[in-house]
This record gives sequence, structure tokens and C-alpha cells, in this order.
Amino acid sequence: MSKPVRVTVWNEFRHEKDSSHAASQIYPDGMHAPIAGWLRQQGMDVATATLDEPEHGLTQELLDKTDVLIWWGHLAHGEVCDEIVDRVQLRVLSGMGLVVLHSGHHSKIFRRLMGTTGHLKWREADERERIWVVEPGHPIAAGIDRFIELDRVEMYGERFDIPAPDTLVFISWFEGGNVFRSGCCWNRGRGRIFYFRPGHESFPHFHNEQILRVISNAVNWAVADNPGFDDVANERESLEPIGAKD
Amino acid sequence: MSKPVRVTVWNEFRHEKDSSHAASQIYPDGMHAPIAGWLRQQGMDVATATLDEPEHGLTQELLDKTDVLIWWGHLAHGEVCDEIVDRVQLRVLSGMGLVVLHSGHHSKIFRRLMGTTGHLKWREADERERIWVVEPGHPIAAGIDRFIELDRVEMYGERFDIPAPDTLVFISWFEGGNVFRSGCCWNRGRGRIFYFRPGHESFPHFHNEQILRVISNAVNWAVADNPGFDDVANERESLEPIGAKD
Amino acid sequence: MSKPVRVTVWNEFRHEKDSSHAASQIYPDGMHAPIAGWLRQQGMDVATATLDEPEHGLTQELLDKTDVLIWWGHLAHGEVCDEIVDRVQLRVLSGMGLVVLHSGHHSKIFRRLMGTTGHLKWREADERERIWVVEPGHPIAAGIDRFIELDRVEMYGERFDIPAPDTLVFISWFEGGNVFRSGCCWNRGRGRIFYFRPGHESFPHFHNEQILRVISNAVNWAVADNPGFDDVANERESLEPIGAKD
Amino acid sequence: MSKPVRVTVWNEFRHEKDSSHAASQIYPDGMHAPIAGWLRQQGMDVATATLDEPEHGLTQELLDKTDVLIWWGHLAHGEVCDEIVDRVQLRVLSGMGLVVLHSGHHSKIFRRLMGTTGHLKWREADERERIWVVEPGHPIAAGIDRFIELDRVEMYGERFDIPAPDTLVFISWFEGGNVFRSGCCWNRGRGRIFYFRPGHESFPHFHNEQILRVISNAVNWAVADNPGFDDVANERESLEPIGAKD
Repeated sequence: MSKPVRVTVWNEFRHEKDSSHAASQIYPDGMHAPIAGWLRQQGMDVATATLDEPEHGLTQELLDKTDVLIWWGHLAHGEVCDEIVDRVQLRVLSGMGLVVLHSGHHSKIFRRLMGTTGHLKWREADERERIWVVEPGHPIAAGIDRFIELDRVEMYGERFDIPAPDTLVFISWFEGGNVFRSGCCWNRGRGRIFYFRPGHESFPHFHNEQILRVISNAVNWAVADNPGFDDVANERESLEPIGAKD
Repeated sequence: MSKPVRVTVWNEFRHEKDSSHAASQIYPDGMHAPIAGWLRQQGMDVATATLDEPEHGLTQELLDKTDVLIWWGHLAHGEVCDEIVDRVQLRVLSGMGLVVLHSGHHSKIFRRLMGTTGHLKWREADERERIWVVEPGHPIAAGIDRFIELDRVEMYGERFDIPAPDTLVFISWFEGGNVFRSGCCWNRGRGRIFYFRPGHESFPHFHNEQILRVISNAVNWAVADNPGFDDVANERESLEPIGAKD
Repeated sequence: MSKPVRVTVWNEFRHEKDSSHAASQIYPDGMHAPIAGWLRQQGMDVATATLDEPEHGLTQELLDKTDVLIWWGHLAHGEVCDEIVDRVQLRVLSGMGLVVLHSGHHSKIFRRLMGTTGHLKWREADERERIWVVEPGHPIAAGIDRFIELDRVEMYGERFDIPAPDTLVFISWFEGGNVFRSGCCWNRGRGRIFYFRPGHESFPHFHNEQILRVISNAVNWAVADNPGFDDVANERESLEPIGAKD
Repeated sequence: MSKPVRVTVWNEFRHEKDSSHAASQIYPDGMHAPIAGWLRQQGMDVATATLDEPEHGLTQELLDKTDVLIWWGHLAHGEVCDEIVDRVQLRVLSGMGLVVLHSGHHSKIFRRLMGTTGHLKWREADERERIWVVEPGHPIAAGIDRFIELDRVEMYGERFDIPAPDTLVFISWFEGGNVFRSGCCWNRGRGRIFYFRPGHESFPHFHNEQILRVISNAVNWAVADNPGFDDVANERESLEPIGAKD
């Protein structure tokens, strides 16, 4: 029997502590709680970590035993220490999967790994979103029909400043007239990265089973087949003889 | 008549000032000199900039009027200021082309735009390299026959830690038994990036017309069609009416 | 001065000859007429060819002097001779550009070059389409603002059975709730292929200057940099000595 | 417990029946025999099929219960019926994996799915090949060190006329001075395709455990996550209301 996937769900966890914010009602224990709960139901071995813990909860020890890290941040991207971002980046390049949710498009770690700004257009107008599957054969789309419909969302629209995804799995349609590349896969080093658009703090999308299913699919997809670090090295000995030159 | 392409050739320019180093003989005026000379012969409008100038010679003013930046660095990647790296990155995302040569694979700007380490294997053994064209229809391969042969080179070998190129134009064969993805194209933001392997400081490859031709081809390819910056914005007004929800 | 691009506009030209069909009013001289007219205005050297001509108008002689072929077909894909499809395919692999419009997604030549069915979902309900630019730096998007809006269209929706495009330039939003990858680039051999969604026979989209601009942009993009045919060959002579084996 | 993967190993099986050919000594039961044997050792459910059987052994019934098809052909590509090629193509687009070996680069099914000629350069000179891993994190590279070395091979060299792979896993170095993209992944429809270079009929490479390991890795990788066929359909009912137009 294979060992359970080890996931760490990282959450900024600020909105939810503000009792005047809708998030405090929808996610009283933090957005990470229902995500972690769902992943545990799938048989995964789940830890959580949040911004205000020492080292943001992301110790080297925890990262070393994390197969896939989930990231949600919004208000306080700038408070994430660069040293921790370095640490997470190296783990991803060594094979740790990374699933970035919603406003995480502007997180330091996502921008670091993408090399772009992560900028996009947005609107808060309680509009409908339909997340279309464009690669139905992809494992992240398993169990999802032709689309997921969300009745009220914050809109994210193109132009989304990302490197063209290695695989584009979902495209969102918005009632207000916009589209968005909302499910995007990239490989970086030996790591796999998935960006998934839904998850605004003011809506209960992390209680929606279809959204949760995409997240657990993405975790399973993001587990490295062959973790390891590809370093720089001087290979003094050649594999073949090198002839003398004039 | 279209305006000449505006190129800035950036060079670390340290090896060449060391009279005990071969580079001082091969490139007495710096490696940037023959590159700049060749590009001027192609009718381009060429500036040069080097590490030890104020702001490394890369003022905002110069970058703003640079269509394509060429980058060579090796010994002193760490001395390049982060503010200048930020500045160059934003210009690339806004449409400035970037051609990174040889040991620039470890430069801050290349690692920043790639999100990976840029690590590779290397060997200094005066071996032969044959740079094969795998996309003969690509503009960067124009005027190049099936391969370019270099008699003595420093070897760079896989695994090269880069995001898979958007287009892989050249693959190198080495006498000592290695291979390398030696001509790689990426799009980032509105900018185009080309990495080209040859150009060790101890060999006269920047006096080789085929190498120079690839560089000028790459400059022409990297000129943005539609420069501009894609920012973040709240689009309060929707394009379509948004229905009331329950 | 560079020579004008040589374009051949191929049209099935059946709907327009049926006086009971709206197409006969909108395009009395065939859909190819306004496209050809626009391209001539851009200084291109334009020929036209249609299904019912001998060899469908696509003689080897004409193809040999065509830089980019535009293809519109719908009713009669099955009437296109396989020999002509072979001929066009080889020319594309040798560097002739191909721009496939609208219902051409089901043409023999498109399916041949893609290896997939080209299947999609569709609806005729006079709905609005908004064609969003997702790669604003791409030459095919030149002169186009954030999107093109078309008031009444036939809908094409995902899942569109194509290989993932090498570059995805446009994504369409439809009033009825669907999305579609509506501007897709591929390289095949030394040729460049662009699929563009608009162009239903019952609407005057080929009189719309923004649509025409995308088509002329696509033609310019699709001109081969280095045409030629990459054949199979036995290279008896090796480039390096091959050692005796035990 | 998951069900065993169902593999069909298809072999042209002509060289091996010619007692004057080395293949008859190396593979007395056909090349498919050691491949099938290895896959059975990995716990797979393996069938074989060959050219001279009725329907080339590829009945609809067998294909319908095949998760992954392996293909080796060389002398007699032209004898494969187009109807069988159609059948295999549709199964691939519906999610059947396809692993194409060596001279299968010129098979009808590979050319059909690629849309290109599959042309390449070749040489029979008993030279050494070193198959380098360029994506060490990819599941097809599992258990393979930095490269696989084969002492005597037929050379295949660039330019290889294929669409740029969705993922390039291996690049070959040849003693005689050539390089080749020797391990290439593509998605087509819901199916996954892997091309792997080694396997000349005159060498015992299908008795080499590293080569066999890549093949079984490729089979495991090529099993569809979500098989199904994405057809064409008229979606008369829209998901959203469509407004009246003027």
C-alpha cells in the first residue's frame, strides 16, 4: 500500500480573525480548516501552517516532509519573509508540489516561481462564474463534468500576466463578460505547480465539494514522481575521450 | 523605412581587464565590443553598458529606449544590485527583449525571469561542440546550416534547470559525451527571452560569424511586436449586466 | 524593399451561390472576395481559389508560389480530394503558412495537420461574442484592444478537440455561457498554422475591420522565415570517428 | 487494489521470420515477446498482435479493452490498412495510450496523429548512443540515472520532423556527432503518446532492462485518467439567457 500524501495547507489567516469580515462567519476556523478536513477525508496526511506562526509555520523540517503545499494569501503578501520564500522555492524545485489558490496569484512565492507579475483584472459584483474544462483527460479534471458553476464570485479577468501554462485545464466564463485562465499547470525544476482561481474570502467556495475535488485532484497530480535536486557541478572526467587540438 | 533596432549590450567586463587572463588578449576592449560591432554592421543602434558603471550602466532612461538587452556575466552575478534586476525584469515584462549568453544562465536576471536555479553541469577540457538546429524554420536559425561546429569550448551539460523552453531551437553535442539545450526561447509578459550557450571568456566565439549571426537573429526575433505593461486593475463596470442573486 | 506576401484565399464558395441563403446577400461574390480585397489593401499579392474549380483551384504551381493559404469550408469538406490535401499538407510542412477560419475546424487539411477530430460544441442563437486577447504581445493581436466584440454569432464552445496550441492568443466569451479557444497557433514542420474562430456564413464578419485585421496579422505572422523541406536521409558518413567495438 | 494495466504489444513481425536476418537470432519469437514478457513481470495484463493476423490483430474488441498500445513497425508501414489506422486513432483520441518505438516514427498511425512526416536522418555504423534525461522529474524517467548508454546502435539524427513535444524527456548523443530528441510526449484528444527511439531490429535493446524500464514507465504514464470521447454536438439550449438583438 502506498503511503498517504503529505500535504501542508498554508493560509494567511487574517480575514477570518476579523469579526467584522464575512470570512469570520464562513470560515470561523480559517479557510485552511475545510480544505484540510476534505483532504483528510481523502486519506491524506495533512498539516496546516499560517502567517503569524514562527517562520510562518513553514519550518525546514515541515517542508522536508511535505509532498504538496497549498497556498492562500491576500492581504499580507509583503509580510512573508524572503528567507521563507527562498526555502519554499528550493523545495518546489526539488519536487514539492505547490497548489496556489485565488489571490495567491500575487504571493511572493508564485511570482518568484513564475518570473512575472501575476497581475490581472478583478471586480467584486456578485456575478456568476462557469469554470469550463478544456482538457477533460487531465487528472485534475477527474470527476468534474463539463464545467463547475459558482453563483456568486469575485471576477478575475484577462490579461493574467503568467507564463503560458504548460497545460491549461480550466477557462472561466463570467457573467459580467470576462474570461480567465483559471486552472493552470506548470513544471519548475522537479516540482509541479497548479494555480486554481476560485476561493475568495467572502464566499463559501471551500465548502463546495466540486472545488474541493479539484484541489484534492491537484494535490494528487502535484506529488513528485522523482524528487531530487539538480545541482551545478564540474564534471572533470569526460564520458568520451577528448582529442588533442592543434 | 522602419527604425533601427535599439540594442544594449551589457557585459560584466571583469575577465578582460585582468591582463593575466586569456580574455584580455581575445577581447581587449571587452566581449561587448565585437558583439556591438557586429550588431552595428547589421544596421542596429547599439549602446553598451558594464557592471562597474554607475547603476551598472543600466539607467531607466537607457532601458526605456532599449528594444533588446544582451547580457553576459560570470564572476560577479552577486554584485548586480537587486534594484537594477527589478528594473530590467519590469522592462522585459513590458516588452524589452533579452538575450542571455553563456554563463548568464546563473545571472540574477535570468534566474528571476525563469523561477529556477539555472544550474547545469560543466567541464573545461577544450572539447568540440556541435550546435544542432532542431527547428530549422525558426527565425533565430536563419542562415545557419544544419549545425554550427566549435572546435574548443567549455562544456555545458544537462540537466539544465530551466522551465521547458516555449521553443527549443538548438541542441548541443559535445565531444566528451554530453548534450545540452543550447538555444531556448521563452515569452514572459510581453517580452521575449533567448538563451544561447556559446561564449566562454577564454575562447574567441564572439569573433565567430555564425555565433554572431545567431545573436543578431535573436535580437531581431526578440523585438516586441506590441510593447506595453499589463497592470492590475479593478474593473468596477461590467461589460454585461449582472443579475440580482437570491 | 521586401516583396509583397503572396496569399491564396481558398473558399468552398457554395453557400453564397444559393440565392435562398443569407450568405448570397452578405457575400454576393463569395466570402473570399472581401478577405482578398482587404489583403490587397494591405499591399499583399492575393489569389483566390474555390472548391469547384479544377483541382479546387489549388494547382501545385499556385501553391508553390503561395506564402500563406487561407481556408474556409463548411458544407463540403468531404468533396475535397485527398490528393489535394496531401499537396497542401506537404507545402505547409515546407513552410507555407495556413490560416483556417471558422468551420474550417472540420476540414480535411486541418484535421490532417492536427491529428485530432476538431470536434466542438455549437449553437445558432444570435448571441454576443467577446474575443479576449490573452497574449497582448503577440503579433496577431497587433492593433486589437483588450477584446473584439461581435453582436451576433454562431457559438462554438469547448471541448474543442485540438492539440494544445503552441500559443493561445484569443479566448472567446459567449452570451449563452460558453468559452472557446478562438485564436490558436501551431508550428508543423517549417509551417505556421493559425486557427481563428469567427466567420459564420450568415453574418458579415468578413466585412468587420477588426476581424480582417486579425486575418492580415495572421498572414504576416505565418510567412515562413526559412522555408524548406526536411527529408529523410541516410547519412553514411559520420561527423566524428566511430570506434571499433568488441 | 487497482486493476492491472491492459497493454497490447503490436509488432510488424517480419524481420524476425527471415532466418537470414540477425533479428531471427536476437528475437526468435519476435520483438514483441521480450517486451510482453517484461510487462507481464510488472504485473500488467498483456496481449500481442502482429501485422499478418486478420485485422493486423487489432480488432475493435481488443482495442476497446486496451489501455495502452505499443507499436513497432519498419518494413511494411504501407501494408497497414487505413481502416485499422482510423480505428487506432479514434481509440487514442478517446484515451488509449500509444507508445511508438524506434522505426515506428514512419508508421501511418504516428504520422496520422502528429500531422508531420516523421522524417529524420539515420546511419548504420555500430556507434555508441547515450540517452540523456533532460526532465529527471518525469515519471517516464523513474529509475533511470542521468543517462542510458547503448554500445551499438543505428543512429537517428535531427532534424526530426515532429510537432514540438509537449514534454521532451530524453535527448540522445551519438558517437558519430549527432543529437536526437529521443523521448517525446504528446497529448492528443484524451490520449497520451510517447515516442522512444531505441529498438533497432539488429540489436538486443529489448533485452536491455533500462530500455524495458522506460517502456513500462511509459505505459504507466500513458494510461488515461479520464477516458471518453469528445464529440461534436449542437447545444440548442444556452446556459444563460440570450438577449434579443436589434
